[in-house]
Amino acid sequence: MATEPLYIKIKENDNVAITVHAIPAGTEVMEGVVSRQEIPQGHKIALEDIEKDAPIRRYGVVLGYALDFIPRGSWINEHMLRLPIPPDVRHMTFSTNLRTDLPKPPVTTWEGYRNAEGYAGTRNYLGIITTVQCVEGVLNVAVDRIRKELLPKYPHVDGVVPVNHAYGCGVAINAPEAVIPIRAISNMTKHPNFGGELMIVGLGCEKLQPNMITDQVDPEHVLMLQDYQGFDVMVQAIMDMAEKKLKKLDQRRRETLPLSDLIIGMQCGGSDAFSGVTANPSAGYASDLLVSGGATVLFSAVTEVRDGVYLLAERAVNEEVGKKLADEMLWYDHYLEEGRVDRSANPTPGNKKGGLSNIVEKAMGSIAKSGTAPIVEVLSPAERPTKKGLIYAATPASDIVCGPSQLASGITLQVFMTGRGTPYGLPEAPVVKVCSRTDMKNQWPDLIDINAGTIATGHATIEEVGTELFQFIIDVASGRKQTWAEKHHLYNYHCFFNPAPIT
Amino acid sequence: MATEPLYIKIKENDNVAITVHAIPAGTEVMEGVVSRQEIPQGHKIALEDIEKDAPIRRYGVVLGYALDFIPRGSWINEHMLRLPIPPDVRHMTFSTNLRTDLPKPPVTTWEGYRNAEGYAGTRNYLGIITTVQCVEGVLNVAVDRIRKELLPKYPHVDGVVPVNHAYGCGVAINAPEAVIPIRAISNMTKHPNFGGELMIVGLGCEKLQPNMITDQVDPEHVLMLQDYQGFDVMVQAIMDMAEKKLKKLDQRRRETLPLSDLIIGMQCGGSDAFSGVTANPSAGYASDLLVSGGATVLFSAVTEVRDGVYLLAERAVNEEVGKKLADEMLWYDHYLEEGRVDRSANPTPGNKKGGLSNIVEKAMGSIAKSGTAPIVEVLSPAERPTKKGLIYAATPASDIVCGPSQLASGITLQVFMTGRGTPYGLPEAPVVKVCSRTDMKNQWPDLIDINAGTIATGHATIEEVGTELFQFIIDVASGRKQTWAEKHHLYNYHCFFNPAPIT
Repeated sequence: MATEPLYIKIKENDNVAITVHAIPAGTEVMEGVVSRQEIPQGHKIALEDIEKDAPIRRYGVVLGYALDFIPRGSWINEHMLRLPIPPDVRHMTFSTNLRTDLPKPPVTTWEGYRNAEGYAGTRNYLGIITTVQCVEGVLNVAVDRIRKELLPKYPHVDGVVPVNHAYGCGVAINAPEAVIPIRAISNMTKHPNFGGELMIVGLGCEKLQPNMITDQVDPEHVLMLQDYQGFDVMVQAIMDMAEKKLKKLDQRRRETLPLSDLIIGMQCGGSDAFSGVTANPSAGYASDLLVSGGATVLFSAVTEVRDGVYLLAERAVNEEVGKKLADEMLWYDHYLEEGRVDRSANPTPGNKKGGLSNIVEKAMGSIAKSGTAPIVEVLSPAERPTKKGLIYAATPASDIVCGPSQLASGITLQVFMTGRGTPYGLPEAPVVKVCSRTDMKNQWPDLIDINAGTIATGHATIEEVGTELFQFIIDVASGRKQTWAEKHHLYNYHCFFNPAPIT
Repeated sequence: MATEPLYIKIKENDNVAITVHAIPAGTEVMEGVVSRQEIPQGHKIALEDIEKDAPIRRYGVVLGYALDFIPRGSWINEHMLRLPIPPDVRHMTFSTNLRTDLPKPPVTTWEGYRNAEGYAGTRNYLGIITTVQCVEGVLNVAVDRIRKELLPKYPHVDGVVPVNHAYGCGVAINAPEAVIPIRAISNMTKHPNFGGELMIVGLGCEKLQPNMITDQVDPEHVLMLQDYQGFDVMVQAIMDMAEKKLKKLDQRRRETLPLSDLIIGMQCGGSDAFSGVTANPSAGYASDLLVSGGATVLFSAVTEVRDGVYLLAERAVNEEVGKKLADEMLWYDHYLEEGRVDRSANPTPGNKKGGLSNIVEKAMGSIAKSGTAPIVEVLSPAERPTKKGLIYAATPASDIVCGPSQLASGITLQVFMTGRGTPYGLPEAPVVKVCSRTDMKNQWPDLIDINAGTIATGHATIEEVGTELFQFIIDVASGRKQTWAEKHHLYNYHCFFNPAPIT
């Protein structure tokens, strides 16, 4: 077995590298660089003397400026550097880096559930959309009964998903920003994994009336609890409507489809310093394979691309796309400002423990998951794409909010990269977990689907892990495999992004 | 049977009344007042000619100003009046209406679970607090198993409540307003219905670290999923900790306690024009009985008291309490302003259909649930009381957000008044439903616990229904009765109020 590398240096002019494993004090990391203290796994070591106020570079990018003189061999942590000024999104260069030679995918078809319009499904679910949180208690009781009493009769249906959420009433429904959560709920009515069978449960007196989320408000699709006499009657009404939909859904079968019928999302959460060199670039490579095969891939998170947004602007296919990218950044800058915070509110304690010193370093790693394809469209939160290919879908970086936002945009599978580990899952779409370190895979063998940590130790290449991930995505999308989160039934609540006030 | 009244007029100088039932055109409602068109149930009829720009008065209060001339006998709906300027909270009169002759309660004790400190419990639950939403999927699987495999062995424990929520990470943890959700989650660790048995499940890398919500961060109480090797091991660890807590909780028994050990919350949702004359005044009378017996009663909702806040200021026991009341109003005015909305964002379509024309009319009805006792304390959202008696707990008016906020303040039972009907429930505390109209009780016989509609039809008095409600509260608090929401297992998600940004 070859000796494992001690450090990972990314670009030639970087003046720091990260450690592959924890390194004791006095270790010669490379010629002339001896560690001055113990350095934790994934943390930065200074490869040269860095003067006070001099730039600290990783990924060929300035992460920040040294607060004090840092001698060569020192551990550089989050307390030792000052954030640079964020890139000015009003003066970015567009479309100067449009790659045309993407790698070719090993397969170009998958097995999915064809829909009358739009993307195909990866699962065959009965989705029940709610207009307001008030109905949640009754709906959950009904869904329990549907699962026990009805589902076994319809073996070709994969499950029932109540789309419960915190929105719908007790909110400023006419606030300018209310458009975001309303769009999210409206778009959930059209989710590709719901097979075109619309079912809405509302209360009656709520602000978010059914006609605000769908054109099809007839009683075949919409059921309002206040119209029914008592609890038992309303539960029965929900079950009756559900059974009609289940009968239709049970007729559906998978078909061989081109990759252009597939839409997936990329997200990372609980990142560490390895995320940007192992898990995220592998996901980026898988994304390149998917996009070059015709699929649609969404990647997201505003605060986590903000500091490297100029790199995305260069990949925007035209000025219109580039300008919308800039607008989404400006909207978020303003949103954070109004809340009297800035982008330093990210990263988390776990990110820092994992070696990520600040949001610039996190952003450079985060962007790696987008691969290298041109960006054909930019979506505001919860918008549905109109183009196929690589798409930037602006959302908060919070996993718990980004996930539902991507679902509303229509993703039918999500790839989730993690360094620290999170057992997150989505009820509507399988979530494939990719970890950045082998230690993480060893710690959570039955939660992590793909280990990209082998890249850090030199046992695999980005292309190898990326191709493995691509194949796993196709297998999961086609129903040949299940993710760990699916096997364990791990689902998070729908936290749709609502920047408008609660009344 | 006596003839039922056709209308309800509240104060002598009111120039409108509301209809008890729908009234056809041409009906002589009172001497000299003939309806000019059909008037829906609970809607306002003009008792005299009202000139353009003249005040429209109900509850002796100006609801708004006529947009056009309104002839006597006309139906007055929400499109016919202009909102008055909200009361100036900077110049209110405090402590001029401190009632000392509250009605005496028929009983002064109840049966509760005594706690080492603070209020007693009405139920004996194992509560599991989460630091972050990431853990929800794993925790829910573990809780299912606890309910099936462990709970049957501990028959004196009423249930297990996972306190899942949308907070904890992916949020601006240092934003000035982040103090509100953090306080809410922290105070949930001390909920009286959890019997002093602390159990926290976190992830590891989240922003909301356990020491931010509790002093007791030892492994006896706190379990972080990233510390465990894989899914099965973490589920087992949760179950093992739960069983230790269940063993202790199973030793607890109810004791006869004074009313001063009881803390309840008052909330209304899906209100109509009857709410302010039937359900809410009955709740107010029950509140007076409770408070005069030594209990603590919280009432809430900022936008729904805003227009009548001067009436509360007069009942504030001193200037300090009055000033905090004013501060809470100003904070919310500013919060809505930043979201570019105002108090007209409330009421809902259902409120309007139920006859409530605007937020002034809704506020006057809403305040009725506070009864007539002096207000001894004002709480910011999710704060815990330091006084006993009637307390104003500032929260959003949204039922779904007010409920968890009152829970965080420690209520062990909630009384919920409704006109339009909502099947809402809280996992930690029984919710007693009181309806404003007999039609509502007939529509939802197995969801509404107490019907106050008999007051509108002259079949019962406010005092009678209020006393019936008081007795039901005592029975439910003492475990002798269950609410309908409990019987049906109707629970809403914990939407803790978070006015800070998501990152």
